[in-house]
Amino acid sequence: MFNQVTIIGVGLIGGSFALALDAAQAVKKVVGVGRSREALQRALQLGVIDEIAANEAEAVRHADLVLLAAPVAQTETILRVIAPHLGLRTIVTDAGSTKGDVVAAARRALGGKFPQFVPAHPIAGKEQSGVDAAEAGLYRQRRCIVTPVSDTAGHALETVVEAWKLCGALVSEMTPEQHDQVFAAVSHLPHLLSFALVAAIAKEPDAAQKFAHAGGGFRDFTRIAASSPEMWRDICFANRAALLHELDAYEAELKLLRDYLNRNEVLALEQEFAQAREIRSALRF
Amino acid sequence: MFNQVTIIGVGLIGGSFALALDAAQAVKKVVGVGRSREALQRALQLGVIDEIAANEAEAVRHADLVLLAAPVAQTETILRVIAPHLGLRTIVTDAGSTKGDVVAAARRALGGKFPQFVPAHPIAGKEQSGVDAAEAGLYRQRRCIVTPVSDTAGHALETVVEAWKLCGALVSEMTPEQHDQVFAAVSHLPHLLSFALVAAIAKEPDAAQKFAHAGGGFRDFTRIAASSPEMWRDICFANRAALLHELDAYEAELKLLRDYLNRNEVLALEQEFAQAREIRSALRF
Repeated sequence: MFNQVTIIGVGLIGGSFALALDAAQAVKKVVGVGRSREALQRALQLGVIDEIAANEAEAVRHADLVLLAAPVAQTETILRVIAPHLGLRTIVTDAGSTKGDVVAAARRALGGKFPQFVPAHPIAGKEQSGVDAAEAGLYRQRRCIVTPVSDTAGHALETVVEAWKLCGALVSEMTPEQHDQVFAAVSHLPHLLSFALVAAIAKEPDAAQKFAHAGGGFRDFTRIAASSPEMWRDICFANRAALLHELDAYEAELKLLRDYLNRNEVLALEQEFAQAREIRSALRF
Repeated sequence: MFNQVTIIGVGLIGGSFALALDAAQAVKKVVGVGRSREALQRALQLGVIDEIAANEAEAVRHADLVLLAAPVAQTETILRVIAPHLGLRTIVTDAGSTKGDVVAAARRALGGKFPQFVPAHPIAGKEQSGVDAAEAGLYRQRRCIVTPVSDTAGHALETVVEAWKLCGALVSEMTPEQHDQVFAAVSHLPHLLSFALVAAIAKEPDAAQKFAHAGGGFRDFTRIAASSPEMWRDICFANRAALLHELDAYEAELKLLRDYLNRNEVLALEQEFAQAREIRSALRF
């Protein structure tokens, strides 16, 4: 049972974490803080938080657990602001989509308090954002990856794992590097590739005619090209090295398929497609 | 009103065409023919066709309209078989996903009867295939592209356009080259790219861990990688030139995005994403 959990950035992710802990009767008081006064008032009105803190320093001073759920580009700035005000027993965690950069930022910002920080990435979301979309069940049966490093405090890790389990999440552990490579491949690269297809066609002289004839395959393939440009710009730069590594592998595959087409290697192309189909068909989401 | 419509290949596409014409009371008799005796019996049982022809020659001899809806790889072979048996008033059309190759095949196979052939591509489909999935409403409010060439007979074109309109389709006209370039961009390339992502990840040492963490974005992006390898192999080769042209444009776009990442051009990357998002969000399917 947490006496106080503080949410920095009370939107879909932070709000749902608060509601889930509350539903599990695992927290006495939830304190919210963030840049938008309006969002905090709304969170208070909805019962997502119990109290609005005057500032980040006040918000974390008496917290057992602090969840950083603001846009990832603000991570280091916020950690620097709260660092001097963190008690020895206060544990800090985050919910960012990339982890190597967050670990580096936390190390710089928190200094000697870095062991109190547990990097984490809950894999959940929905179309809507903002605290109005928050719900206690958002993390139920969804994966949450924690990426501790050698100097992460053991009890801090245990506490964060326990908190996410109380939210109903399936928690697993990876190194930050493994995490970033995995999500570069299955999330960040597909977003880049999907934006790229729409952008490439848009530059062609017959773009309007092409878009007018787009069907179901194009619709699904480019659904993620309607995602937030700011957020995906941040993720791509935050995870640049791993993303470029996956892009290399992808471009090598495209070259292979192109060679099969050019050399009339019908069977080889079919086998490549068939292997992909077999794997894709076996995936359960 | 057609006295006899013949369907060569009575599956989802051919069967739905027959049902739609029947529902519009536009055909007296539907004759079916194809390689699978079982499928033809089933089509008869379901009332999709009125009669099974003994062979292709018998099937087309008295037909007003012949729809070729067998796998596209068989197009030229079937046209060669039926060519000698086509009456002067019999019109032939197809439903293939590529058109330049079909026009070339029809010209070779039909010789002097080529003007009776109208290349067409109804843009409709669903997850299931086979005659059991056929339905009269499949083409309602869906696009159908006809791609006549200079020596296509005017009355043949009018008849095929009318038949698809009777099925409820929104018929438009393009050259075979325009058609193939449009669908290379919005259909064939996305399929190739989607197969490629799954195939590329599968070759990496941590493939299993990556696929285990695939989420909603990956699910949508790779939905079409569960498509038929044989069918997409055929389409990629049938439309190779246009597909490679679109792949060139796509790879140029990837190079641009890669350069932005490498040169830390944050705003340029965001603008590229933002433009793609704006276009994608405006599309209606």
